[in-house]
Parts: sequence; structure tokens; C-alpha cells
Amino acid sequence: MSAEDARVDGIATDRVSVLERGLHYGDGLFETIACPHGVPRFLELHVARLREGCERLRIETPAAAALAREVHALLTPGVRAVVKLLVTRGVAQQRGYAASAGARPSRIALRYAWPVPAAAAAREGVRVRLATLRLGENPLLAGLKHLNRLEQVLAREEWHDPDIAEALLFSSSGRLISGTMSNVFLVRDGRLVTPRMDLCGVAGIMRRVVLQEAPACGIIASEEVLRLEDLQGAQEVFLTNALTGIRPVRDLAGMMRSPGPLTQRLQGQLAPILHD
Amino acid sequence: MSAEDARVDGIATDRVSVLERGLHYGDGLFETIACPHGVPRFLELHVARLREGCERLRIETPAAAALAREVHALLTPGVRAVVKLLVTRGVAQQRGYAASAGARPSRIALRYAWPVPAAAAAREGVRVRLATLRLGENPLLAGLKHLNRLEQVLAREEWHDPDIAEALLFSSSGRLISGTMSNVFLVRDGRLVTPRMDLCGVAGIMRRVVLQEAPACGIIASEEVLRLEDLQGAQEVFLTNALTGIRPVRDLAGMMRSPGPLTQRLQGQLAPILHD
Repeated sequence: MSAEDARVDGIATDRVSVLERGLHYGDGLFETIACPHGVPRFLELHVARLREGCERLRIETPAAAALAREVHALLTPGVRAVVKLLVTRGVAQQRGYAASAGARPSRIALRYAWPVPAAAAAREGVRVRLATLRLGENPLLAGLKHLNRLEQVLAREEWHDPDIAEALLFSSSGRLISGTMSNVFLVRDGRLVTPRMDLCGVAGIMRRVVLQEAPACGIIASEEVLRLEDLQGAQEVFLTNALTGIRPVRDLAGMMRSPGPLTQRLQGQLAPILHD
Repeated sequence: MSAEDARVDGIATDRVSVLERGLHYGDGLFETIACPHGVPRFLELHVARLREGCERLRIETPAAAALAREVHALLTPGVRAVVKLLVTRGVAQQRGYAASAGARPSRIALRYAWPVPAAAAAREGVRVRLATLRLGENPLLAGLKHLNRLEQVLAREEWHDPDIAEALLFSSSGRLISGTMSNVFLVRDGRLVTPRMDLCGVAGIMRRVVLQEAPACGIIASEEVLRLEDLQGAQEVFLTNALTGIRPVRDLAGMMRSPGPLTQRLQGQLAPILHD
């Protein structure tokens, strides 16, 4: 599962500069791209999100074509893989937080083996716990898939039971936000709701696809401020992730539930898109 | 001002693995150590804080001697320098936030030129602004000098006027916390107070030294919950930083003040320790 191949700024290498601002400050962003059959899925969405993130962090925005090229260069047609693509503010020219004028962003791409398939998880659902850690709130970073991921690392360290697939996280003011590596959707009064990403959390690609596709199968979907009681009272709960698609929650911290009809309808709607 | 020399895990190199968890997640900690005359100042305090940080993040804690060795190996007796020392959870063995069992931490050390001396700033004081960005609050990360520093990068991007030395930051719930690269002390009713580091912020080495040394010059000092009105009403305001020592604030977002008697008494007390 470790990286099989890597490129930095278009050159095959497994090393980066010790002065990388990505290393010193987490000063960058990333995407994790599923590539079934060796073809990157939702590549335009991933590239667009990465570029939007650069604009928000005021990192010089790489051309979309340059980013897509880094992904394609690591792929072999027909061979499924996962590509992680990082963009950082670049190699530091000086000590300290201030960015140098004219700093060139770094493009770092890594290829990993395709994850072990887990069709049962999509069909039967997964076990989920509630994290103890609460996410800090910062609107300037909210929604971004940036490289400051210590909170996710610590939340993931809270459990070692391999039967538990994910933990759901709340923010410091008590809002439901997401999993450590997934977004969460609830069905409430027959409608689909997912937490707003305006204080913290990552606005995932699969989350976006679900919000876009829901109307096509007759489901009203919206982003809301949600709390523990919304989670507890939900008729259905599912997780989204760019690699694993839609996974129903069958065990929510001990509360058992079956995959619900809206969850299954959305899975059916997305099946042609997600087919690997 | 860029790094002059670097070592990774005891080997002279300017490269790190593209799989560094420090790069992917900011999963580590750092120290910035002043080395006047080529001798690291407060080395034991820096090493102790780094090891405490590893324990809090459950990173395998490197031996103190191994950390001190990385610093000394970059120094030449008599030649002043700044050494930055990072410890990360190591090189990832797999994709994802979960740490591998038996992961070995990385030790990354860099030497930089000594900063341009600015004795006038210590004597006459510095100009300081108030940051717009508010720091997220997470008690699990509070006080640590960890590698998730995007908030500091963005706060430092808020101004480009070289006459402004620092910005003071508040947290999402409105607490006064620190500068982007310094701690802050206020004099209130003749006593010294500094923000508690229990929700966010870095508990700096110079902050600790000031808290320790204050009683020796007859000053009562404590850590408190402080807000904007405490800052505005303070009789004296100064900043601390391991490289620059104590700097009075002479211009606090347009409010002019002179270096105060307690600030100067503490500068006098610390002068023998900080002499470079």
C-alpha cells in the first residue's frame, strides 16, 4: 500500500527538498484520485478543487493541464490505481512563515495500489464510532483539503478495531462535520442533508457528486448546520469518499440500522459513474 | 537566509522522502533554536519540549541525546546560527491517516544564518497589528509547536509593510492568544499576565523563561484567559521569541506606548542569559 511511484514537478523522484513549505508548515493542498482501469475518475473536479484551494490560500495556481499531466504520467492504461496529488507553496527561500515573492508552487504526485475491494461495505454498511477529538473552527481553512491534517491523524489514532471503518467528528462548538476521511449525509424527514463546510471539514468530491446527482433521482438535498441530535434522529446515515463511493452506516456507535431506501437509490444512481 | 546545511536522521542531505508524514499531514513538531557563538541556547528546554510534544502526539519519542546531537552536528564553535529541528512521525508505510505500528520518527535539522541584529527593536519597541484571522481551538494541539502552521502562514500574509513586526491573534471564541511567531505578555495592575495556551497557540520557550524569571525581579506573573479589552487596557505590552528575546510593543494597531518599567526590568534580568 506504500507508494509505487512518484513525481515532483514533472520529474520521477521519491525525494523532496528539506525546505518544502509543505513539510515545514503543511502549506499546501492535496487530492486523492481513484483511477479505475488506469483512468482518473472525476479528474476535472479534483483539478478544479485543487486550483480553487490554491486561490483561497493565495498559492500561485498551477495550470489545470500541468496538474492533469502529473496524474496521467503515473498511470498505465488498464491498471487501476490511486493517485495522490499535492500542491504546496513551494520550496522556502527563507526561514519564517512569510512566503517569498515569486515562490513557485511544487507539484508532488504519488501512485498507490488500488485498495482491497470491499463491496460488502457498500452493500451491508459499515461500523462507525463518534470521535472524542473536536475539530477547531476556522472559516479561512474550512472546506479545503489542505495539508494540516494533525486532527485527522489524532482522531484516527483513537481506535484500532479493524471492524470500525470510520469515526464521525464534531467541531469545537458542537457541530457535526464529517468523518476522518469521508463526508456524512443524513436522511431527515425524507430529505437528504449534509453538514455545511463553512467552519471546518473538507468539502469532498463524492459529497459534491451526491449533492449534484440527488435531484436526478427525486431526492431533495441541502447543506445544513447539524448537531448530535440530528445524527441520532436520522432515518438513514451514509458516508461518502472518492475511493469508496457511498457506504451506509449500519452501526452508529452501537445503534444498529439497515441501509435505507434513499441511500440505495443514490447508490444505484451513481453505480454507472463509479463502476470500477 | 535560506538553509545552509541540513541533516536527516543523522545524515547530511537536503532531501527527505516524498512519503514523509510531515509533508502529507504536518504530522510532527519543530523547534527553532538560537545558537549565539555556535552554542545552542536553552537546548535542554527545546529538547524537553520537543519530547513532550512527541508524547502528546504519541510519536515515538527520540532520545534527548539523539536530538541534541543533530543540533550540535550543524554548528561550528564561535559561529552564530539558528538551527531548526523537526521531528515527524516518520515515513509513511501506507496511504491514509493511520500510523503504522513500529513507525520510526524522522529527525530533520537545518542550519540558517543568524538573523540581522535588531537591537533597536528590543530598546525602542516594535509596531504590531491585530490579525483578522482567528485561530481554531483544539485543546489536543494547544501549546504544541506542531507542523500544522497554515493559520500562521495566512496570518503572516495579511500584511506586507516591513515596518510592522508582528500581528496579534485571537481565537475563534475571542481569546487573545499570541503573535504569529511570538508570545505576548501584558502588564495589568502592576502584574504580568500572558494568555493561557489551553485552547490554541504555542507555549514558547522564551515565554517559559520569562514566567520563570519574573519572580526573581519581584514581578508576579500568571497565565490567564485574556481578551481584546485586556490588551487595550494593558499598561505595558511586550512580545517574546526564542531568537529575539523580549520586544516592547510601541505601536499597537495605532495606539502608541513607550517601553514600560516592568518590560525593561525583565529585559535587564534576561540580558546575561540572552547575550549573543
